[in-house]
Amino acid sequence: MRYHTGLFIPGPTNIPDQVRRALNLPMEDMRAPDFPTLTLPLFEDLKKVFKTTTGQCFIYPASGTGGWESALTNTLNPGDKVLISRFGQFSLLWVDMCERLGLEVQIVDRPWGEGVPVEEFADILAADKEHKIRAVLTTHNETATGVTSDIAGVRKALDASDHPALLFVDGVSSIASIDFRMDEWGVDCAVSGSQKGFMLPTGLAIICVSQKALEANKTAKMPRCFLSFEDMIRTNKDGYFPYTPATTLLRGLRASLDLIFEEGLENVFTRHHRLAEGVRKAVTAWGLTVCAKEPKWHSDTVSAIYVPENVDSAQVVKQAYSRYGVSFGVGLNKVAGKVFRIGHLGALNELMLLGALGAAEMALNDCGAEIEFGSGVAAAQQYYGSRRNAA
Amino acid sequence: MRYHTGLFIPGPTNIPDQVRRALNLPMEDMRAPDFPTLTLPLFEDLKKVFKTTTGQCFIYPASGTGGWESALTNTLNPGDKVLISRFGQFSLLWVDMCERLGLEVQIVDRPWGEGVPVEEFADILAADKEHKIRAVLTTHNETATGVTSDIAGVRKALDASDHPALLFVDGVSSIASIDFRMDEWGVDCAVSGSQKGFMLPTGLAIICVSQKALEANKTAKMPRCFLSFEDMIRTNKDGYFPYTPATTLLRGLRASLDLIFEEGLENVFTRHHRLAEGVRKAVTAWGLTVCAKEPKWHSDTVSAIYVPENVDSAQVVKQAYSRYGVSFGVGLNKVAGKVFRIGHLGALNELMLLGALGAAEMALNDCGAEIEFGSGVAAAQQYYGSRRNAA
Amino acid sequence: MRYHTGLFIPGPTNIPDQVRRALNLPMEDMRAPDFPTLTLPLFEDLKKVFKTTTGQCFIYPASGTGGWESALTNTLNPGDKVLISRFGQFSLLWVDMCERLGLEVQIVDRPWGEGVPVEEFADILAADKEHKIRAVLTTHNETATGVTSDIAGVRKALDASDHPALLFVDGVSSIASIDFRMDEWGVDCAVSGSQKGFMLPTGLAIICVSQKALEANKTAKMPRCFLSFEDMIRTNKDGYFPYTPATTLLRGLRASLDLIFEEGLENVFTRHHRLAEGVRKAVTAWGLTVCAKEPKWHSDTVSAIYVPENVDSAQVVKQAYSRYGVSFGVGLNKVAGKVFRIGHLGALNELMLLGALGAAEMALNDCGAEIEFGSGVAAAQQYYGSRRNAA
Amino acid sequence: MRYHTGLFIPGPTNIPDQVRRALNLPMEDMRAPDFPTLTLPLFEDLKKVFKTTTGQCFIYPASGTGGWESALTNTLNPGDKVLISRFGQFSLLWVDMCERLGLEVQIVDRPWGEGVPVEEFADILAADKEHKIRAVLTTHNETATGVTSDIAGVRKALDASDHPALLFVDGVSSIASIDFRMDEWGVDCAVSGSQKGFMLPTGLAIICVSQKALEANKTAKMPRCFLSFEDMIRTNKDGYFPYTPATTLLRGLRASLDLIFEEGLENVFTRHHRLAEGVRKAVTAWGLTVCAKEPKWHSDTVSAIYVPENVDSAQVVKQAYSRYGVSFGVGLNKVAGKVFRIGHLGALNELMLLGALGAAEMALNDCGAEIEFGSGVAAAQQYYGSRRNAA
Repeated sequence: MRYHTGLFIPGPTNIPDQVRRALNLPMEDMRAPDFPTLTLPLFEDLKKVFKTTTGQCFIYPASGTGGWESALTNTLNPGDKVLISRFGQFSLLWVDMCERLGLEVQIVDRPWGEGVPVEEFADILAADKEHKIRAVLTTHNETATGVTSDIAGVRKALDASDHPALLFVDGVSSIASIDFRMDEWGVDCAVSGSQKGFMLPTGLAIICVSQKALEANKTAKMPRCFLSFEDMIRTNKDGYFPYTPATTLLRGLRASLDLIFEEGLENVFTRHHRLAEGVRKAVTAWGLTVCAKEPKWHSDTVSAIYVPENVDSAQVVKQAYSRYGVSFGVGLNKVAGKVFRIGHLGALNELMLLGALGAAEMALNDCGAEIEFGSGVAAAQQYYGSRRNAA
Repeated sequence: MRYHTGLFIPGPTNIPDQVRRALNLPMEDMRAPDFPTLTLPLFEDLKKVFKTTTGQCFIYPASGTGGWESALTNTLNPGDKVLISRFGQFSLLWVDMCERLGLEVQIVDRPWGEGVPVEEFADILAADKEHKIRAVLTTHNETATGVTSDIAGVRKALDASDHPALLFVDGVSSIASIDFRMDEWGVDCAVSGSQKGFMLPTGLAIICVSQKALEANKTAKMPRCFLSFEDMIRTNKDGYFPYTPATTLLRGLRASLDLIFEEGLENVFTRHHRLAEGVRKAVTAWGLTVCAKEPKWHSDTVSAIYVPENVDSAQVVKQAYSRYGVSFGVGLNKVAGKVFRIGHLGALNELMLLGALGAAEMALNDCGAEIEFGSGVAAAQQYYGSRRNAA
Repeated sequence: MRYHTGLFIPGPTNIPDQVRRALNLPMEDMRAPDFPTLTLPLFEDLKKVFKTTTGQCFIYPASGTGGWESALTNTLNPGDKVLISRFGQFSLLWVDMCERLGLEVQIVDRPWGEGVPVEEFADILAADKEHKIRAVLTTHNETATGVTSDIAGVRKALDASDHPALLFVDGVSSIASIDFRMDEWGVDCAVSGSQKGFMLPTGLAIICVSQKALEANKTAKMPRCFLSFEDMIRTNKDGYFPYTPATTLLRGLRASLDLIFEEGLENVFTRHHRLAEGVRKAVTAWGLTVCAKEPKWHSDTVSAIYVPENVDSAQVVKQAYSRYGVSFGVGLNKVAGKVFRIGHLGALNELMLLGALGAAEMALNDCGAEIEFGSGVAAAQQYYGSRRNAA
Repeated sequence: MRYHTGLFIPGPTNIPDQVRRALNLPMEDMRAPDFPTLTLPLFEDLKKVFKTTTGQCFIYPASGTGGWESALTNTLNPGDKVLISRFGQFSLLWVDMCERLGLEVQIVDRPWGEGVPVEEFADILAADKEHKIRAVLTTHNETATGVTSDIAGVRKALDASDHPALLFVDGVSSIASIDFRMDEWGVDCAVSGSQKGFMLPTGLAIICVSQKALEANKTAKMPRCFLSFEDMIRTNKDGYFPYTPATTLLRGLRASLDLIFEEGLENVFTRHHRLAEGVRKAVTAWGLTVCAKEPKWHSDTVSAIYVPENVDSAQVVKQAYSRYGVSFGVGLNKVAGKVFRIGHLGALNELMLLGALGAAEMALNDCGAEIEFGSGVAAAQQYYGSRRNAA
């Protein structure tokens, strides 16, 4: 009898109780006269989370993958060239999607554990005098490796060569958890999903697009219908949708945004950083390392942790789940068996993480790693305590 | 203070309390070792609802519109010719989607209130000696007009001329409520959604495809990724998904299928027919008519009801909502202002419908229709009572 | 498959969805430092519902019966004489409780269907020169017969003879639904429960006592502990309880009071009257009568309806439940088999009642009553419509 | 923003998600024909938890305090002599209740931290040749001090002198968590509540009585009505209740019992012991001691932990709540400020406890205790790990 399973994967994240209550709903008429009193403020409030005043948000009944596809098919044309760096499972999947959708993809491969190679991008963009590159695709937070990239740096690279390419950001596991600045960074399409920083069940692709992207949309010729911007634009302005929206999740989003604003968006980021830093202290105390190769790439939403060579990380995850009732993330693709991931985003606090670290220590030991019991927990406690005392 | 809003639109439908409870859930790890114990039986049980043993079901975190797009993009090639009849808002939207996705659409327009013109289709198919038509698209239940079409008839038309075209069915507002026979009728792609007969919130596109459609998938060249069959096929076989699924709705689907099987699928159909027939008796008692021009087209899931000429049906719907707390469906497009719709599908019983009919009588009178109070209710009671006594 | 059971008993009543959401809660520490931020406002807000500024409210984790016992044992002494009139199952049960608790009970029996005999009470009190009667017990709303009594009249009777007896009111099925005025009527102990006008699950006895009752409490010698006032007084003042309170229901009570105040207490009363009057119009249209013998006794929260002589009302209730999924109240004790009861209190609207009346017509006919289909529904519609048009 | 508060008080306990779902319910008719299909099996299944085949269970809509009062008032007479030992807040409150209800109480005071003095009881009972003592009252688990007493020993003491006194057990914080044997130990009245081992919200007093107690009931003269056995006996036999029961909690009880039986009652006890032992290992590692003076008195449901002399335990509890979002129990009465309590009963696992221990270490340090970070966590991990490896 498990009674409670701790959820420490990098999404879906734990749903706050207030959101869970908001989701406990009968169905409603999405064409009711008062439905826009729910939806219109949602569109406005989402813009605050994306930190944009000039952009426009769309909410699809889809997953983050649908959000990516929407961003591409609504702004680009078949055969368009896009620049992207591949350094983890999710940037890899984005490359794959681009290719399947018929785009020409210029791939910059980097070792898993690194982030967007800003300087190399700058060189490529500067060399692209003819502006063949129509879009630069970046993964703000690579969920597979726990690497956060420098989007502001990519913007600088674009600006340095006056390059007109659109800037796309996969912010699925960063937005609403790690600072993201749509307007300041000149982002054209930012993609997120409901089940990460928005602390909701899976089911909403939440994207935000710039006026420049909306302009591109007018001439974009890739086939699309379900994920089209234009149907959304036409109907959203009155608070409705082109087809049945996921009303339950929209009610949940209202509750979730209320919580985020109550805590304060900057405080949300600070909390994520503090929690993440504690986890990293624990990893160091264990004598292990995270996948992110440099501190500048440390992700505040997920840590991918290399297990000792004699240990199979897949076994650690399985043991944690089966024996201790804790879900950690497995290593994917190139780092399968080598890393396990602790998601530390969304509705999380120190109490929950201390338990997770304690369980990780047990599962690691069970699978052959010689981790001193309590060592990681103590390192995290020390950090959490010292920060508090300083404050 | 409204306290309770009656939901009588043709979807989303009322969620049974058992399903509502099943949805009241924390998030879970969609890569957990025991996750397939949930998902694999779902795929099998869905096949029972579609009445297929040879087909395969896919569950997308999307709406019915996404399901349509998935069916088209996974089986057809750009420029392929499809045959479709347009006689309501939803068949109209399907035409629109086909055109936007770059298909060549042969449209047979029929008056709103009629269904698929089976004989005309037979003629067209017989004349298509070169088999240019790659797919025949049918709307099993046109939600805008309350018209159910004869899919078995379309199959016969195809067979009569040995035509190899794929047969697509929009079963969004029919499947799990009105008898549908995937295998017997030789349907190749059937599309449904969670928020109708499956009695769940919006958020799942549920589709079922034949082996012939799966074969077509292998050579289909329309761009797709989020809605692709192939990623689903690869991952579903082990009980997983290519990206984060809507786990909450999958748990809800388990509860919903359990209810459907507990009642018995045929009993579900019988109940829908009985409830619908009572509504039609009421319409007749009111001196009004339904949009469906002939009894053979009467829909057992939704009735579109013409209001008297001096009455604006949009006002009736608004009055019912604002004054009596009842959601009816508005008239869409060509029948806007002329019809209002009573959805009578999903988790519904006589008690609920008697209340809805009573409220409709009040709203109709409020808006200028001279309907005798209680007349429709009495006609429905008479029918429900006589059927019972006979049984 | 029933899918939805309509609840039209005189309590428990339907829980509004907002309250249901508020009840969907994890447990919490009833000794937490911030727990009083929940409880202290509850005590104040309850006083508004009882219409008192000088009284004090207690909330027991018990049922209404516990509330009655608390009122008696905390203010009276063994052998004390109390005056009460018996005219229904619940006044009967109150008599029974008094006797079992060792009080001397002066019973004034009246036919079931009548209310408190104010004039007879006046005579008795006037004759009680020695003030042997320590308390007058009244049933504001006799739930078994649908009879509302004149509490203000009883106060006048007491005042007329300057009688010092305490005035007790069973307001279980009236308070928060029918106008009740603690201070104006000089009520000393008013008893209610969570599952009626407060629209919550069963589990809270909510009572309100005057300063005079609190004074009596100081010398009251009946044994009590769980239901004692004094432990509550001592702990409630800081927002805590003498033992573990039903925290879930307290959170629900917050939501319920918010709804009541949002609608407006007087509007709540008006709504109950309007709904009740529609039911009575239906009863008349059916050619039947309510149990309450005179209009002045008509209850706005429950109607007990005499079935024709050839009909067994228990069968009607059973048929309504088994066949139509509607819970009506059975006839109790003296009126068993003769009446069935429609509860029309709490979170209810016209839509729900029209359905209930329609189902009642069917169940009555099924059981041998010759009720014209739709007749009662039409009478209610006429009344609800004319009231609206007038407004 | 707290997002999640860990609940580690000795009741209310954490509600399992399955139970939470079961509680998410509309109201229902407690007189419905099929209501007994819920209630009759509950009565039977409760007997399995109490380990009785000859006893009878009652379920009151009340708290544990109401359960105590019910046990006393239904079996004893005013002035009856009862024997009880007082060694904590809850045994103290039971003494208080007995006195207030007019019983003659022979109190054996023992230091807080000790349990029922079995040998002293044996002497007293042996000396009571006239059998003046009508009942022996024992606190199976003293929640304030974390002391479990030897009820079997008390039975032996009674038997040794052939004493006919009734044996009462307060099992509020033991039953369904710690082994309890109604029949084997010859217990006559055992009292529990919903919010401890039954993992439900507060609101049900659950008691179980022997045939001997039922015999005593027939002549018991203490006034009672709400909490009477006789009304329950009369109505329960058909599956109904004498007044409105807490239907929601009864549905929850069904879910809770299902979980208990699924895990297996003995496994539930084993789990509680394992979890508790880990906590005690942590306490030792911290250099602290529990309140229970000897291992034989160690409670498997709650540990009361002495803080160092320079520390105020109330501050520790406050700090844990305010800063770390964890509810621990405060010290009550004689041990106020000296102990804090970790409740480790109900739906709990190692993950949760490791987090709680980690948070306790932080709160203790914050309040001046010099506890080595991670030391208690490590001791618990060591114990949990070694037990597992052994198994």
